[in-house]
Amino acid sequence: MESSRREIEVMANLLSSNDMQADVNRTYFRKNHCLAINVIGSPGSGKTTLLEKTLPLLMLNLRVGVIEGDIFTSKDADRIAAYNIPVIQINTGGGCHLDSKMVNKVLPVFDEKGVDLLIIENVGNLVCPADFDLGEAFKVIVLSIVEGDDKPAKYPVIFRNAKAVVLNKMDLEALTDVNMENMRRDILAINPDIKIFEVSCRKGNGLEEWISWLKQEVANA
Amino acid sequence: MESSRREIEVMANLLSSNDMQADVNRTYFRKNHCLAINVIGSPGSGKTTLLEKTLPLLMLNLRVGVIEGDIFTSKDADRIAAYNIPVIQINTGGGCHLDSKMVNKVLPVFDEKGVDLLIIENVGNLVCPADFDLGEAFKVIVLSIVEGDDKPAKYPVIFRNAKAVVLNKMDLEALTDVNMENMRRDILAINPDIKIFEVSCRKGNGLEEWISWLKQEVANA
Repeated sequence: MESSRREIEVMANLLSSNDMQADVNRTYFRKNHCLAINVIGSPGSGKTTLLEKTLPLLMLNLRVGVIEGDIFTSKDADRIAAYNIPVIQINTGGGCHLDSKMVNKVLPVFDEKGVDLLIIENVGNLVCPADFDLGEAFKVIVLSIVEGDDKPAKYPVIFRNAKAVVLNKMDLEALTDVNMENMRRDILAINPDIKIFEVSCRKGNGLEEWISWLKQEVANA
Repeated sequence: MESSRREIEVMANLLSSNDMQADVNRTYFRKNHCLAINVIGSPGSGKTTLLEKTLPLLMLNLRVGVIEGDIFTSKDADRIAAYNIPVIQINTGGGCHLDSKMVNKVLPVFDEKGVDLLIIENVGNLVCPADFDLGEAFKVIVLSIVEGDDKPAKYPVIFRNAKAVVLNKMDLEALTDVNMENMRRDILAINPDIKIFEVSCRKGNGLEEWISWLKQEVANA
């Protein structure tokens, strides 16, 4: 990027101040025995729909809370509120990602109820959220396979930093030109330890494996 | 966004310095009788595929050049190079959008050949590129309808600032829950003057209208 030395300095300060606040959040989560995960994906990859399909099964055994990150609307939080769990919307007002300060501000909402699992859905963006630690235990990518199998190589930072990737809209595979073998190969080339799930949120396929993995992560936390 | 006064100041300086350089680019385009357009959309919305389908027909009457914006790879420029037209890749090296200085630096590439239409494909991101004027005549959005009909309301800035939106992957309409009536209504509520095209790049449907509109824009420029 074309940046003056002053801009680079400010960006470095911004990231370092974000990291410090993220550590505070991380301590909070640990103290409260809460696994926090940061869910990242392009607009329309199916992040909120994945939550809608996942929550009813998680709620059987766990106390779950949700933070919805969005630029302007509360559309996603309204959808999640139907599940009668603690949910809060953060509007970034134009900002392209959540940061650790925004998250810290809303944490008291979950204090009273207590949550075992806090799902933070980031702003729909495959680039900027990758750089901002929120204090989460790990990041999860949601990628719609309709976006194409070239996406891991084109957006490697987020694939390098995530613990799991949910490949969504598998029901559309036969109707697109996506090559799932290339997709998996490229993802594992960037991050050999990443866990890959193939699901169709719309049809309900493949969700059990993802949900039982997530439950196990909460149990191990 | 949570920003200190210093960060806000630097962001304002960055945007104002970008705008000044954009004006220089705009003057260059005008002087060279070149219509420059800035194509913006999420990862996998189909921006490069739209170019691949559009170029063969545009090239019959026009001299076309392409700038490909990407974070790391030259995958998109490699695809466009097959059409034997002047194309240059800009890698932002992590940056989430093109800016007017990056574009200015590569303009000499097109000097010798001369182009009537310069298509600038931005980084796959529906948020950040909306704020950075590159000196283009206008912006075009590419939105995959598979992303869902809630996207215009969730990402209004880019819809407010664009002259046209290409709704791509229409061949998948019946297999998704997208409501095209809501989609069109929300787009026009944000920007009543925007031109809407419904296409399937994969099947080739609806492309003629888009291409003849673009040709007319070049003729009117």
